[in-house]
Amino acid sequence: MSQITRFGVSIENALLEKFDQLIFARSYKNRSEAIRDLIRNELVLQHWGDDEAESVGTITIIFDHHVRELTEMLTNVQHQFNEQIIAATHIHLDHHNCLEVIAVRGKTAAIRKISDKLISLRGVKHGKLVMTTTGKDV
Amino acid sequence: MSQITRFGVSIENALLEKFDQLIFARSYKNRSEAIRDLIRNELVLQHWGDDEAESVGTITIIFDHHVRELTEMLTNVQHQFNEQIIAATHIHLDHHNCLEVIAVRGKTAAIRKISDKLISLRGVKHGKLVMTTTGKDV
Amino acid sequence: MSQITRFGVSIENALLEKFDQLIFARSYKNRSEAIRDLIRNELVLQHWGDDEAESVGTITIIFDHHVRELTEMLTNVQHQFNEQIIAATHIHLDHHNCLEVIAVRGKTAAIRKISDKLISLRGVKHGKLVMTTTGKDV
Amino acid sequence: MSQITRFGVSIENALLEKFDQLIFARSYKNRSEAIRDLIRNELVLQHWGDDEAESVGTITIIFDHHVRELTEMLTNVQHQFNEQIIAATHIHLDHHNCLEVIAVRGKTAAIRKISDKLISLRGVKHGKLVMTTTGKDV
Repeated sequence: MSQITRFGVSIENALLEKFDQLIFARSYKNRSEAIRDLIRNELVLQHWGDDEAESVGTITIIFDHHVRELTEMLTNVQHQFNEQIIAATHIHLDHHNCLEVIAVRGKTAAIRKISDKLISLRGVKHGKLVMTTTGKDV
Repeated sequence: MSQITRFGVSIENALLEKFDQLIFARSYKNRSEAIRDLIRNELVLQHWGDDEAESVGTITIIFDHHVRELTEMLTNVQHQFNEQIIAATHIHLDHHNCLEVIAVRGKTAAIRKISDKLISLRGVKHGKLVMTTTGKDV
Repeated sequence: MSQITRFGVSIENALLEKFDQLIFARSYKNRSEAIRDLIRNELVLQHWGDDEAESVGTITIIFDHHVRELTEMLTNVQHQFNEQIIAATHIHLDHHNCLEVIAVRGKTAAIRKISDKLISLRGVKHGKLVMTTTGKDV
Repeated sequence: MSQITRFGVSIENALLEKFDQLIFARSYKNRSEAIRDLIRNELVLQHWGDDEAESVGTITIIFDHHVRELTEMLTNVQHQFNEQIIAATHIHLDHHNCLEVIAVRGKTAAIRKISDKLISLRGVKHGKLVMTTTGKDV
C-alpha cells in the first residue's frame, strides 16, 4: 500500500450529520474509510467505459440445469474464453435451479463479451455482470 | 446554508492522485466540493427507498405526438396529478418527436406512480424518472 | 411511424403471469406496448456508449441560488454551450432551493461535458443527467 | 419448467430491425429468449424493493489481504451470517490484491446487511452486490 496523505474537507454541519448517520448504518468505522470507498467506486465506474482497460469482473448466472444442452454450452463458452476465466463456483439452489459465479480477468470489452455469451443462452434465467478492478490502481 | 465544519480524510497518495485527475476531468474546483457531491448523491439514493418521503423528481419523455389521443392522454394524467406536477416543458425535436420534461414534487411513491402512468402510454417511446431532492436535507 | 410487423414470443405460463401482473401495476394497456418499451430502453442504453452518436438529454439540478456567483456561473455555462442547450425550466422550491431542468441535444460526449460542468459547480447540491433519444431510431 | 404459451407482439419494422441487431450482437439465438430475459430482469429488479422477499445474491469484493486483521474480520462477518452465506470463492489477483465472491441466500434486507458489513471494512477496496433470484419465480 502506498503512503498516506491527509487533506481537509469543508462541509455544512447539517450535511455532515446526515452523512454520519448513513455511514453508521452501513457499518463504516470512520469517515475516511467511507470517503475512500466513494472515491474508489467513482474510479471503477469510469474505468468501465474504457474497452481496452485491464479489468476484473464476476458474472453471476441463475439457470435451470435441466434445459437440454445448457450445461454443455456453458462449459463450451467457458473453455472458449479460458484465458480470461479464472474460476467458477457452482451452487445447487434446488432441484432445478443453479447459481454459478464466474470470475474473469481481461480487457473490459472481452469481459462484456463473455458475459453476453453466457447470459443469452437459453435456460439462463437471470445474469448480471459486476465490473470491478484489479485493485492495482485504487 | 448551515455552518461549516472541517474534517480530515486519510488517503493513500496513489488513490488521491487518481481522484484529483477525476475531479479535474469533471470540472470540480476543489476536493471538498467533489466529496460533498459524492455524499449528497448517496443520501439522495437512500432517500428513494422510502415511499413516504417528500421528494422532487423530473420525468423526461420522448413521444410521437401523431399517435392518436396521446396528447390528450398526457394532459389527462397531468391533470389527475395536478397536486404533484409543478411544471412541464415541451420541445419539438422534429416533425414527429417531442421531448417533454415534467417536474414533480410529492411522496416518492406518488412520483413513481405518475412516471409509470406517463411512460406506459402508447406513443411514449422512451421515458426516465430522475429522483432528486427538495434540497432541504442536503 | 413505420409499418407494423407482428411476431410470436414463446414463454412459460408462470413467467407470463408474473409479467402480466407487472405491466398491470405499471399501467400498460397491453403486452406489446410493454415489450416495445423494454426494447427501446435497451437500445437507448446501448446508444449512450457511443460518444459520437447524436442524442438528447435532460440535466436536472437542485441548487441554492444564494450561493455567491452561482446564478451567473450557471448562465455562463449555458451560454458557452448554447448550440446544444435547447431550453431550461426553472422552479423555486423554497426560499433557498431551486430546481432547473435543462434540455440538451448533441453528441453524447458533449452532453456529458455540459452535465459535468453544471453539476460540479459549488452550490449545486444534486444533479442527474438523463440520456434519452432523438426518437428517430426507436 | 412450466407449460409454454405463445403470444404476438406488434412492433414497428424499424424498431424490430434495431432489436434484431442488438440481440445478434449479444449472441441471442432468437427473439423469444431475448424477450424472456428482458422480462425476467424487470421482475428481479422489482423483487429487490421487497425487504422480506427471499432472494439470492453474490457479493464481489476486492481487498488487500495485507491490511491488518482484515482476513480475520472477513471471516468473522461470514461466520456471523453463516445461515445466509452459501459459499465463498477466493482468488489471488497479485501479491496484494484478492478477489472474493460470496454467494448468499436469504431475505433481501439480510443480504444487503451482509454486503454493507463486508464492503465497509478497511482494506476492502471495492465491492458490489448483485441481487438475483432463487430461480423459482422466473
